[in-house]
Amino acid sequence: MSTLQNRQFKLTSRPAGMVKRSDFDFVTAAAAEPGPGEALIRVLYLSLDPAMRGWMNEGRSYIPPVGLGDVMRAGGVGRVVASNDPSLAVGDTVVGMTGVQDYAVVRAREVTKVDPRLAPLARYLGALGMPGLTSYFGLLDIGQPKEGETVVVSAAAGAVGAVVGQIAKIKGCRVVGIAGGPDKCRYVVEDLGFDAAVDYKNKDVRPALAGHCPKGIDIYFDNVGGQILDVALSMLARHARIVICGAISQYNNLQTIEGPRNYMSLLVNHARMEGFVVFDYAARYPEGMKALAGWMMAGKLKAREDIVDGLETFPDTLQKLFRGENFGKLVIKVAEEA
Amino acid sequence: MSTLQNRQFKLTSRPAGMVKRSDFDFVTAAAAEPGPGEALIRVLYLSLDPAMRGWMNEGRSYIPPVGLGDVMRAGGVGRVVASNDPSLAVGDTVVGMTGVQDYAVVRAREVTKVDPRLAPLARYLGALGMPGLTSYFGLLDIGQPKEGETVVVSAAAGAVGAVVGQIAKIKGCRVVGIAGGPDKCRYVVEDLGFDAAVDYKNKDVRPALAGHCPKGIDIYFDNVGGQILDVALSMLARHARIVICGAISQYNNLQTIEGPRNYMSLLVNHARMEGFVVFDYAARYPEGMKALAGWMMAGKLKAREDIVDGLETFPDTLQKLFRGENFGKLVIKVAEEA
Repeated sequence: MSTLQNRQFKLTSRPAGMVKRSDFDFVTAAAAEPGPGEALIRVLYLSLDPAMRGWMNEGRSYIPPVGLGDVMRAGGVGRVVASNDPSLAVGDTVVGMTGVQDYAVVRAREVTKVDPRLAPLARYLGALGMPGLTSYFGLLDIGQPKEGETVVVSAAAGAVGAVVGQIAKIKGCRVVGIAGGPDKCRYVVEDLGFDAAVDYKNKDVRPALAGHCPKGIDIYFDNVGGQILDVALSMLARHARIVICGAISQYNNLQTIEGPRNYMSLLVNHARMEGFVVFDYAARYPEGMKALAGWMMAGKLKAREDIVDGLETFPDTLQKLFRGENFGKLVIKVAEEA
Repeated sequence: MSTLQNRQFKLTSRPAGMVKRSDFDFVTAAAAEPGPGEALIRVLYLSLDPAMRGWMNEGRSYIPPVGLGDVMRAGGVGRVVASNDPSLAVGDTVVGMTGVQDYAVVRAREVTKVDPRLAPLARYLGALGMPGLTSYFGLLDIGQPKEGETVVVSAAAGAVGAVVGQIAKIKGCRVVGIAGGPDKCRYVVEDLGFDAAVDYKNKDVRPALAGHCPKGIDIYFDNVGGQILDVALSMLARHARIVICGAISQYNNLQTIEGPRNYMSLLVNHARMEGFVVFDYAARYPEGMKALAGWMMAGKLKAREDIVDGLETFPDTLQKLFRGENFGKLVIKVAEEA
């Protein structure tokens, strides 16, 4: 075991504005030995998520920040190479919080076994993982879509947005996506079955969105915050629900984030804005996974991953996420599956 | 009838920033005759409400704006002096939308008869009127208080806030008010029974409020918006509810209103922010009135009115409201009751 070399990205400073390579140390150490109840995992794919930016900041949030000097937190999928727990065998494939490194020691009860024959492994970090569950609980539990309602989702080609829109279609809603660039817009309409898409990089969002929502917006699922949230607020239907899932446009601000100036639309329209994080629904993950897998098997839920090769690309690949340059769930391939 | 002289404030321009006397024409005309199903009302008291500022603005809202050249919209209580409807008799006392004038022709089915022996007439514009109903439905239906929870209310000595806090006490909550000046703060604690009050004009709200809410805020009932809303957002407990009832600090802004920068606290705390207007609950007014009157009879609900004499003071009295200079429900006395 002690010959396994473990490359790790450790957070060394709290980023000001956009995250950058110099906020991390890229070091190599011997992989640790698993203690009782633990296993050693060879990381195969790492998940890159907008939430990572928040984890780098000081201060209270829904989970503690990554400590300075600690391995950067990340979800990953990997293979068990050594186990000190009867529930995991060498060769098992698991997902969990592995951190940005080659090898992770994890507590057996804090990872989930997955079947590598059912889906490409990276999908367990996307539509069949935390982003899929985020979409499922955010849309269904907070948004509560009803047949015939108009659902708008931002970052519609992203890991969460793409699943939100497809579930909304399954529930009989009219779905409008907001995405950056003609390729992503074409993808959500032609491949994912959205009713319409607005290209926020090349169109004036307000009139374009208004044109697609003649009866107003019943549910706005927000992944981006900023001006697009304000535009959506200005078009709410009566009793609208705004699901606050993220605010990627604001995470790298140097100044304080921009608040939604049109929030009094909540009063005028008897509407509500509600936030959540997927961890709130941990007890219901099995329900969500079953539904997502079922829709995928039935061909009703499609997914796409944007796979970047090499652990060493981590800081640059994370910047790509915040620039909206990924197309599909962004993952880093750390090692070959075989 | 035709000898009755009717003084009226008509809106002549849409105010920029603070409302001012020159936004109105103060004219005198002969009182109109009531048509079929109508009655002529001698206005006795007029209600001055923050919402009036919104009614003066152009654009879509929950009710149409007051038209330029039209009598300014206002709630009032008055006495029937002529009736063309069997449901109203001369001498009856009614509340309804009378407008800022001496005499109003109203549709009989759009006003409500009240008993002048049960409470001072001005109270039907406050704790036993729209503000009381606003408090009742906003707190109970949107806020859903549970025993032992911490409820914070802004504009706590105002017509709505004072009732919100007292109902929250009736429901077994810990109640903290935010009000301007030591007199109002003393009033809400000593007279109304709030657990604590924060004087936003003389104290740093953030530490003062934090000191009174050691377990965070479960319900924030917002009448003011702006920085105080942001402070409250920063102190939410898990599953907190923010009731958006008004934003008086923002209504006279020349620029766009300030959005709540800390809204991502909704995500971190799985909290929601929901708006409403009292008209949404019109079908349930009898339920609300019965409860409010019952608590008042039982001595559990106290009220205070700030009565200014003379219809002619209207624009200046309205400014007093936006400056927070009223102490209790602000009404204008238009005529003697006798």
